[in-house]
Amino acid sequence: MMSDAELESLNLRVVRIVYQTYTRFQNCLDEILAVQGLTTERYFVLLAIKNHGDTARITDIARWAERSTNSVSMIVDRMVKDGLLRRARDRRDRRAVNVSITRKAEDLLTPANIASVEFIRKIMSPLSSDDAHTIIGLFTRLNYRLLEHHNPGADIDGILKDDSDLHDRLIKKMAEQRTLTTA
Amino acid sequence: MMSDAELESLNLRVVRIVYQTYTRFQNCLDEILAVQGLTTERYFVLLAIKNHGDTARITDIARWAERSTNSVSMIVDRMVKDGLLRRARDRRDRRAVNVSITRKAEDLLTPANIASVEFIRKIMSPLSSDDAHTIIGLFTRLNYRLLEHHNPGADIDGILKDDSDLHDRLIKKMAEQRTLTTA
Repeated sequence: MMSDAELESLNLRVVRIVYQTYTRFQNCLDEILAVQGLTTERYFVLLAIKNHGDTARITDIARWAERSTNSVSMIVDRMVKDGLLRRARDRRDRRAVNVSITRKAEDLLTPANIASVEFIRKIMSPLSSDDAHTIIGLFTRLNYRLLEHHNPGADIDGILKDDSDLHDRLIKKMAEQRTLTTA
Repeated sequence: MMSDAELESLNLRVVRIVYQTYTRFQNCLDEILAVQGLTTERYFVLLAIKNHGDTARITDIARWAERSTNSVSMIVDRMVKDGLLRRARDRRDRRAVNVSITRKAEDLLTPANIASVEFIRKIMSPLSSDDAHTIIGLFTRLNYRLLEHHNPGADIDGILKDDSDLHDRLIKKMAEQRTLTTA
């Protein structure tokens, strides 16, 4: 049995190494995307819209990026100003605003996808596919607990299923895009 | 053997689940710290200073938080304005500015530490100590690769050893503080 102090020390080591790895990953990705004229934040917004079917609402982007609609609104405003996104009224719900990706952003997105996939492959190369599945399994359990904490009484399995469906759709789109690019 | 497409899909699933878990963790921690009148960002700055021995330079804080000195400078400015930090010239290096924690911040830090350790324990409870060690091992390998990518030719083992020493010092300080609080 571990003492309370040992358990706490182990927990904090996990949080610290995940924080460091995540932050260093994001810093490297920022540098890679800067070469393509994007930030990680903007890249994620473009991926979210792409994933949603070429046009998306602020709430769709916020959900995918796990950000508040307020902070996504601010990023989207700046991206519209810089000619990366275009606004359009939703045909079915006239209060909602859809955003779509401009040609200019599309031209940045393809090399950004290639560079980020290449970078991720390089960073992940020391891990076997069993290791990757181990991380997915352990983090899914942590995710479950976080969702329970944040949404008491909610259907957590349903939320995780939606997450996973959304993600599968993105992977498929990225693969299709690559096929189009290399064809 | 996995095809390129399968490997890429697996890599992206790992990145996605780590991103989601990390972001959800940070969102929950933000809410918990808001009750204490802190943000996660400010809490990390206070921890970094505490860890460094009650006073620290901007570069020390930036290093610990894996942030740029510019962004840390801006956070520190606002924290000084809000009475959470105090500036003082370094006695040995007159160009450097040290910051230290005020009584007001100290009073926020103790309940923030208790609340965040409690939250971390709750989220980590589904994992065994073997699981925790597995995460530490796998993420240390990813960290190694990220450091190699970012600092070609550097002494990565040295950097990882420094990280680990810094972290051990913080754990010890947090435990000491708790003993003082509960005594």
